[in-house]
Amino acid sequence: MEISALLTSAGINIGICCVLFSLYSILRKQPSNRNVYFGRKLAQMRSKRSDPHWFERFVPSPSWIVKAWETSEDVILAAGGLDAVVFMRMLVFSIRIFSIAAIVCTAIVLPLNYYGEEMQHKLIPAESLEVFTTQNVKEGSRWLWAHCLALYIISCSACILLYFENKSIIKRRLAYIKGSSQDLSQFAVLVRGIPWSAEESYSTSLKNYFTKHYPSSYLSHQMVYHCGKIEKLMKNVREMYDVLYHDSIPSCHSCGLSGGGRPNVFNILVNEPEIIEKGRLDLQDLRDRGKECPSAFVFFKTRYAAACAAQAHQSSNPMLWVTNLAPEPRDVYWPNLAIPYRQFWLRRTATLLATAAFLVFFIAPVTLVQSLANLTQLQQAFPFLKGLLKKPYVSQLVTGYLPSVILVLFFYTVPPLMILFSTIEGSISRSGRKRGACCKVLFFTIWNVFFVNIASGTVLNKLNVFSQPKDIPTQLAAGAVPAAVKFFMTYVLTSGWTSLACEVVQLWPLLCNFIYKFILRKNHGPFDGEYTFPYHSEAPRVLLFGLLGLNFAILAPLMLPLLLIYFCLAYLVYKNQILNVYITDYDSGGKYWPIVQTSTIFSLVMAQIIAMGVFALKKSPVCLGFTIPLAICTLLFNEYCRRRFLPVFKNIASEVLIDLDQQDEENGRMEAIYQRLQSAYCQLEWLAYGSSRPKTKYLCNDEDIRHTQELKSEIEFSQEITSDESVDRPRPANHKTDVESSPIR
Amino acid sequence: MEISALLTSAGINIGICCVLFSLYSILRKQPSNRNVYFGRKLAQMRSKRSDPHWFERFVPSPSWIVKAWETSEDVILAAGGLDAVVFMRMLVFSIRIFSIAAIVCTAIVLPLNYYGEEMQHKLIPAESLEVFTTQNVKEGSRWLWAHCLALYIISCSACILLYFENKSIIKRRLAYIKGSSQDLSQFAVLVRGIPWSAEESYSTSLKNYFTKHYPSSYLSHQMVYHCGKIEKLMKNVREMYDVLYHDSIPSCHSCGLSGGGRPNVFNILVNEPEIIEKGRLDLQDLRDRGKECPSAFVFFKTRYAAACAAQAHQSSNPMLWVTNLAPEPRDVYWPNLAIPYRQFWLRRTATLLATAAFLVFFIAPVTLVQSLANLTQLQQAFPFLKGLLKKPYVSQLVTGYLPSVILVLFFYTVPPLMILFSTIEGSISRSGRKRGACCKVLFFTIWNVFFVNIASGTVLNKLNVFSQPKDIPTQLAAGAVPAAVKFFMTYVLTSGWTSLACEVVQLWPLLCNFIYKFILRKNHGPFDGEYTFPYHSEAPRVLLFGLLGLNFAILAPLMLPLLLIYFCLAYLVYKNQILNVYITDYDSGGKYWPIVQTSTIFSLVMAQIIAMGVFALKKSPVCLGFTIPLAICTLLFNEYCRRRFLPVFKNIASEVLIDLDQQDEENGRMEAIYQRLQSAYCQLEWLAYGSSRPKTKYLCNDEDIRHTQELKSEIEFSQEITSDESVDRPRPANHKTDVESSPIR
Repeated sequence: MEISALLTSAGINIGICCVLFSLYSILRKQPSNRNVYFGRKLAQMRSKRSDPHWFERFVPSPSWIVKAWETSEDVILAAGGLDAVVFMRMLVFSIRIFSIAAIVCTAIVLPLNYYGEEMQHKLIPAESLEVFTTQNVKEGSRWLWAHCLALYIISCSACILLYFENKSIIKRRLAYIKGSSQDLSQFAVLVRGIPWSAEESYSTSLKNYFTKHYPSSYLSHQMVYHCGKIEKLMKNVREMYDVLYHDSIPSCHSCGLSGGGRPNVFNILVNEPEIIEKGRLDLQDLRDRGKECPSAFVFFKTRYAAACAAQAHQSSNPMLWVTNLAPEPRDVYWPNLAIPYRQFWLRRTATLLATAAFLVFFIAPVTLVQSLANLTQLQQAFPFLKGLLKKPYVSQLVTGYLPSVILVLFFYTVPPLMILFSTIEGSISRSGRKRGACCKVLFFTIWNVFFVNIASGTVLNKLNVFSQPKDIPTQLAAGAVPAAVKFFMTYVLTSGWTSLACEVVQLWPLLCNFIYKFILRKNHGPFDGEYTFPYHSEAPRVLLFGLLGLNFAILAPLMLPLLLIYFCLAYLVYKNQILNVYITDYDSGGKYWPIVQTSTIFSLVMAQIIAMGVFALKKSPVCLGFTIPLAICTLLFNEYCRRRFLPVFKNIASEVLIDLDQQDEENGRMEAIYQRLQSAYCQLEWLAYGSSRPKTKYLCNDEDIRHTQELKSEIEFSQEITSDESVDRPRPANHKTDVESSPIR
Repeated sequence: MEISALLTSAGINIGICCVLFSLYSILRKQPSNRNVYFGRKLAQMRSKRSDPHWFERFVPSPSWIVKAWETSEDVILAAGGLDAVVFMRMLVFSIRIFSIAAIVCTAIVLPLNYYGEEMQHKLIPAESLEVFTTQNVKEGSRWLWAHCLALYIISCSACILLYFENKSIIKRRLAYIKGSSQDLSQFAVLVRGIPWSAEESYSTSLKNYFTKHYPSSYLSHQMVYHCGKIEKLMKNVREMYDVLYHDSIPSCHSCGLSGGGRPNVFNILVNEPEIIEKGRLDLQDLRDRGKECPSAFVFFKTRYAAACAAQAHQSSNPMLWVTNLAPEPRDVYWPNLAIPYRQFWLRRTATLLATAAFLVFFIAPVTLVQSLANLTQLQQAFPFLKGLLKKPYVSQLVTGYLPSVILVLFFYTVPPLMILFSTIEGSISRSGRKRGACCKVLFFTIWNVFFVNIASGTVLNKLNVFSQPKDIPTQLAAGAVPAAVKFFMTYVLTSGWTSLACEVVQLWPLLCNFIYKFILRKNHGPFDGEYTFPYHSEAPRVLLFGLLGLNFAILAPLMLPLLLIYFCLAYLVYKNQILNVYITDYDSGGKYWPIVQTSTIFSLVMAQIIAMGVFALKKSPVCLGFTIPLAICTLLFNEYCRRRFLPVFKNIASEVLIDLDQQDEENGRMEAIYQRLQSAYCQLEWLAYGSSRPKTKYLCNDEDIRHTQELKSEIEFSQEITSDESVDRPRPANHKTDVESSPIR
């Protein structure tokens, strides 16, 4: 591959990106696409507005980029929660480290690679890519210490940056926890594995158990119910309302306050006392019919008591009375609460095995399908295509693109499949499920994109890379990695840049929206601000590019500028998406950060191992010797971070909980909290709305009602979606009350 | 190797064992050896007695075997604590599983192996050992399913037995915890990483912190002090007392009640109020001189409050205010409490690396020393030996035995070294230190005895077993394991049987005792009932034989009877040692069991993998296919046990703690407990006595004083050491009060 080919490829991709970005800046101004590009805004305020057919609507503008650039982290925190901030910090960290790497490597490593062998250089565009990689460095060259130095600079700066990122995110998380005094989940413990008894119901035995053992701190409890039939019924009712509401009463949609979309109708229904009474009756009914699950939410009088009960083993049989801190009410994944606790270890083991098998054998069926999709097979299967396929242009397209299209399609099945695995595993919270899927997708990506591509580059053909472990670093450095450089450079261009452009244009929702609105003539498509940020597919992608960058920084410094552009674009695009598209229904409180930390350290150590291979191959034992302590130090640094920072993501420190308790007690807020706890976890509500239930639960005290007043006045603020300037007035810092207290936002 | 050779070897070893056991039964009756063989008894009661030179003293008798056999588990529990019971259960489990395996394998597998190939059989004594192994089975034989069946029977019965063992040990542990109402450590939390402040001392800031956050449950605290100089001073005083007491006042030793050996003198000193006052003054002095460590014991008013505080992270900085449940007072390893908590992660990582390096590279220096110890080298180093070494008999001895002696000597350094590693790691309890060492020694043994010997059998010579991982099972099954069979059979005979005989005779203490008493003419040797059971060296040895047995059960069933004899002997010998020799100074509460469980499952899976290799080699894909689900089921069973049983060994269930608290409150025992807590953890006492301080601490309430009265009357009971029948009258079931409340036992 020559530089000119790379430049062509880059040019094409830049072109595609520009077109898609321009398209986006036009499409987003079309009123019919508002639910695709402003799902979040729509979920917040469904206001009536007129859209004149102004000329500007069809002029591409960079205003969204400017806006995304100007948005501060506090606004992101308010809009997307701590998880979004963590995601953005990951991008900022990547930009910083790759800026340093790009400067160091283009200044030191690139010239050394280029002038490594004594040779006649061609003009740069006609130069082969290999001239810019370490392949061009002479064996035993004295200049390899510069590569070693560059590795040191990159590793050290990565560790230092990581340390400060850790510190700042820990600070954010502590502020988040300290500001979460309205978070009722801190008072609740999810109890599973309540032992069955012939004499008394689960509810009674739970009550007896906790009043006996926690007489001073036990407040109340709420059972989880099996509800197969009720669920089905509620689903039918929901669908009926959908049809009635969206298609028959369109006028309702466009009437200011009450026009909050589907949820509000339920809202009104559920807020009526009789309906609530009815709900209780239903629950009573369920209870009477013995539909209780051996799971329940138990509420305690203080946060500390709840945390203690959640952390300790209750019973001498660890399968009974299993306690966990409850997820936030909106974060609860109800269907999994009914699973008997005894199944969990089996489910977890089975999913682990299934994931591992899927990881390892994914490439086999793909290759099979790809081999089936060759010309001859196609001609046999679809004889009518015979004439078409014989044309050289079409045949080239089919043989060249069909396999990669199949691969990409298979890759698109991975995130949903991993979400399914996480569901089967029995995660009790929606955020936990997504985080589990994120880890699985990350493993998958690193294995099937990074390792398999490197191996298939040159070595898998010889079928001996994994049978001789001690030679792996040398093998990687010798043949596999340089050969993979070409592939990964185009991968950054296509999968990286173009995926960002596709992300911003939201092709699939756009298409669905178009079909729904203009072909099926429905007022509402399936993507009405109902989807949350797909951390489980986006975070692994960004982390993969980080891995590629760190590993190829020294081997092929030319990749760094491409990556730097990718990360800058990603920074703008994801910021825009968080602000405008995705809604924030639940938040794990920054628990994605440990994944980022671990992945970055893995990338660094991997890079150091490959560098060792290069130094061994180029016969530079001094550099090899200097790299080993670097790897050890990196691992020690990781160990330090694991002990210093990661526990903060697991549990909340006692002193924080006790302080919050003491504050609330001093201010006399406890009674109000106890009141609200009674209705916080309502399974019936979940049955009624599924995952899209409204945010009315915390609407109970004066402060919240004042908030609602403020919101009403904010409703006037309706022209801003296309005017772009004033959309994101920073909201009060405490985004939690902000989000949860508003029925119509 | 032929059967006759094996029989000869067995005969020799049986002879050695018989001689040593007879020797033991004589030596133990000699009054001068009483401190070697009845250390435990002596520690319990130091009574004056006359020993006539009766004839029976020099007649070997099997009475000790009968007594060991008759001793019940409750007596073992009372004498050796729960750890000793776990150790004995491990032996019982081994006896059971190997009885089943021996029956199954001699009935099914052995004849099939013997008549596997169509060949002319010689007389059995002249038959080669290989005829009895799977090497003699034809390729593709239909009879391999019998091997598969035997594997199934062994694996399933091992799992079932393991399940019931788990159940019974869990029951024992719960009874142990429920009976430990006198255990003050349940009220104490060890706090490390108290933050430094310029304004106030560690003690003040600790007090402020806990009174602020735990106003209702905080009772008091006790700082840990740096005490380099004081320690040195105390050590000198101790040594001086040793000299004065043992050598100058021998009359004191033989005077009934006060003749309790060294500790009692200190006992009297410390129990005097002025001395205690003096001790407090010293501590006050230390405090004034700023010698406080950032560590302290914090006492809580209830067990549950202490457990909660111990389990949770106190501070948002996980390196500050680190809490752990305190070990029992006698179990505290004081020197490690002064280590700053920040160092721990570094120490742990460093020890891990050091252990791993030692594990892998242990064999290198040994081989080097062995190669240095050849004839030529010896002749060069010691020219005067030249004449001697030229004699063929001597040269044969040197070349044959010297390398193995060197190996054995190197092996003897392993347990102390691993204890050292565990100490450096920073374990806060003596039992934790020993348990850590036990794990390390187990890894070491499995690696350096099992794997290295198998590999060196045939495969390490070819130097390719570890470079082709996928072939390992076949390689193991093909060449390595059968070749190792011969080695391991003699290993069971020599290292197994003979080590038991050596254990019972206590060669090293016996020698030291002899030198001290008859050459140095001192009254007390260095082994005066001062040493606890060496779980860290004995448990790994027993587990190694379990591993060998399970792995060779099908390959070479002849090994099973040898192992069965070993385990039966071990059962008797260790029971005798626990009853008579070792003192029980501290107890981990059965925490060795998880090690046994994990090791057994590892052995089973290893056996299944090797069997797979055999089936693959003998071209029996059906058997291979049937073994895979067996391995998966074994792993699933392990996962189940890990979730169902192992948590019980980690923490004490809340309901148990709360019940104990409630009982104590109802009975009004709390005040007495609070009183005793004040003096339970006394660093000065440790300084005074080292690890051999007396058991006077809990002597404070009426019940205990009554106990002392009972003990006085028990003193008369003094003739029993050699009369063998009445030594172990079962003591009250609650062994804890029993051990800890007696000043003179």
